[in-house]
Amino acid sequence: MAARGDSLAMTAAASALELPDLAAIREAAARIGPHIHRTPVMTCAAIDAETGASLFFKCEHLQRVGAFKARGACNAVFSLDAATAERGVVTHSSGNHGAALAYAARRRGIPAWVVMPDNAPAVKQANVRRFGATIRLCAPTVEARESACDDVARESGATLIHPFDDPRVIAGQGTAALELIDAIEGLDAIIAPCGGGGLLSGTSIAATSLSQRIDVYGAEPVNADDAARSFAKGSVQPLAPTTTIADGLRTTLSPRTLAALRANVDAISTCSEAAIVRAMRMMFERMKQVVEPSGAVPLACLIERSLDVRGKRVGVIISGGNLDIDRLPWQVQ
Amino acid sequence: MAARGDSLAMTAAASALELPDLAAIREAAARIGPHIHRTPVMTCAAIDAETGASLFFKCEHLQRVGAFKARGACNAVFSLDAATAERGVVTHSSGNHGAALAYAARRRGIPAWVVMPDNAPAVKQANVRRFGATIRLCAPTVEARESACDDVARESGATLIHPFDDPRVIAGQGTAALELIDAIEGLDAIIAPCGGGGLLSGTSIAATSLSQRIDVYGAEPVNADDAARSFAKGSVQPLAPTTTIADGLRTTLSPRTLAALRANVDAISTCSEAAIVRAMRMMFERMKQVVEPSGAVPLACLIERSLDVRGKRVGVIISGGNLDIDRLPWQVQ
Repeated sequence: MAARGDSLAMTAAASALELPDLAAIREAAARIGPHIHRTPVMTCAAIDAETGASLFFKCEHLQRVGAFKARGACNAVFSLDAATAERGVVTHSSGNHGAALAYAARRRGIPAWVVMPDNAPAVKQANVRRFGATIRLCAPTVEARESACDDVARESGATLIHPFDDPRVIAGQGTAALELIDAIEGLDAIIAPCGGGGLLSGTSIAATSLSQRIDVYGAEPVNADDAARSFAKGSVQPLAPTTTIADGLRTTLSPRTLAALRANVDAISTCSEAAIVRAMRMMFERMKQVVEPSGAVPLACLIERSLDVRGKRVGVIISGGNLDIDRLPWQVQ
Repeated sequence: MAARGDSLAMTAAASALELPDLAAIREAAARIGPHIHRTPVMTCAAIDAETGASLFFKCEHLQRVGAFKARGACNAVFSLDAATAERGVVTHSSGNHGAALAYAARRRGIPAWVVMPDNAPAVKQANVRRFGATIRLCAPTVEARESACDDVARESGATLIHPFDDPRVIAGQGTAALELIDAIEGLDAIIAPCGGGGLLSGTSIAATSLSQRIDVYGAEPVNADDAARSFAKGSVQPLAPTTTIADGLRTTLSPRTLAALRANVDAISTCSEAAIVRAMRMMFERMKQVVEPSGAVPLACLIERSLDVRGKRVGVIISGGNLDIDRLPWQVQ
């Protein structure tokens, strides 16, 4: 675990890799304002009692397309100049980023292509088609995915909008923390889930720029703890095939997001699969909120006390609420 | 179906039966303010598109104890004079009112007894015990329930707080509509579920007192359509043994609540069981809200178009969110 800002080398690397600063996040907030929800912040006395902390849940499951991804996608799409935008955008995603990019493109009135593995569930494909994007199916490998994206870009001139390895996307994701810090006074910490690191990068840049007193934590399943290992080691570590139910977090960092985390994050916390299910149940039963497994991972870390925040005021980013309600995890053990 | 206010006889009966007026509902709002949540109002573009209306959901599933019942129970309990309150309160309920009364009593620091049928699910008993009330089990019949309540009252001097047939309870329930109308300008209609009629009575009194332009509708399952039949006939009609999943609505009106409805409600709408399940799914999947079957009944009436509100601005009261998430209705056909 690296203490925040302890590595001048990493900070230098971060600027070489281009990361947004607070100004860029503020610009993103202004740019995407008309296209996204300023989501509410919820509290829950029962969960506070359970964790011994005062938790402030930033409800990105109530965001457009049901996930924070709408923020980054909108910022990227609305950052494009007119001539570039006209040719459309393309990405690869089997999840929320694909739907978010489709949504953003429709808001701007430009075409979007989403490359998905041919084994992607019908419900996820429908989620992308709902916003009028074109789906390009490919074999479920990294190579097939990248070559399909390249093909689309070459054929159409569309701009690739990466799910997280893009400063415009990171700046957009950082706007959730901006709103949270603006809404809730005196936060001691913010915790966000970490997959590819786009949300956590944006969150940590916003939080540390606005206040040196706010600790920033990442949260991931112990079954997909590549971010914790990468963070400790200082280089992107591979993720072995994994079985976590938090499907949104089965992604490794990029050198860019790792640099942001090393510069701005205090710790990456992990949790068990059982804790994820328990946190989801709590959010369904006590908060009455439908939260996807990835969105429950920060609370899972808190109830498992892999982070001790007792007595603190903690912002918790609920990343999304898209899941198959016919197969809830407590029913498919 | 009786047009609102068409029956002077019923209005006279209503005053004989004592119903709260707008002033009483405002007093209730002031009295219970410190003990309840001012719940948010949510909108959902996807559900608006489905129904062709602009819907404003009053989120009583986010209320204390997970249901609007906290309002009426708090108003009743905090209306008692000190000497009466000290001897405690008693009610019969296998659902949300029992938990709400337990909550209200604990807030006031007085004892509460809740009479429940001995076949009440453990989870519902736990919900009452959580707030420190004493449970008195009885046989699952009306006679056993009433005699158990009488026994408690005689032994302890506790005051009976009826789930709906009480002007203080009705006034408390009416505060949800007060908040809704205050929050959302230009409502054309409000729709609320109807079981015993406490919520609908309070809602309709508040709405018609504040604005003659707001139509007020009740909603109930066609499988438990006693309120629609009672409303049409002008006398309380019995409810045959019923199979609706909306367990909170398996209750007949009282002469008091019927009088309030006849004076203030425009129509009682009904819906199928399939529509209730479809509405619940929509609220889970699109709004990301955990809503109990009774709470989904108004939306079920709208998506089944048994009420036509296309083009209108409609307040929809979500009554509660307490349900067994291990057995969601789309999984136990």
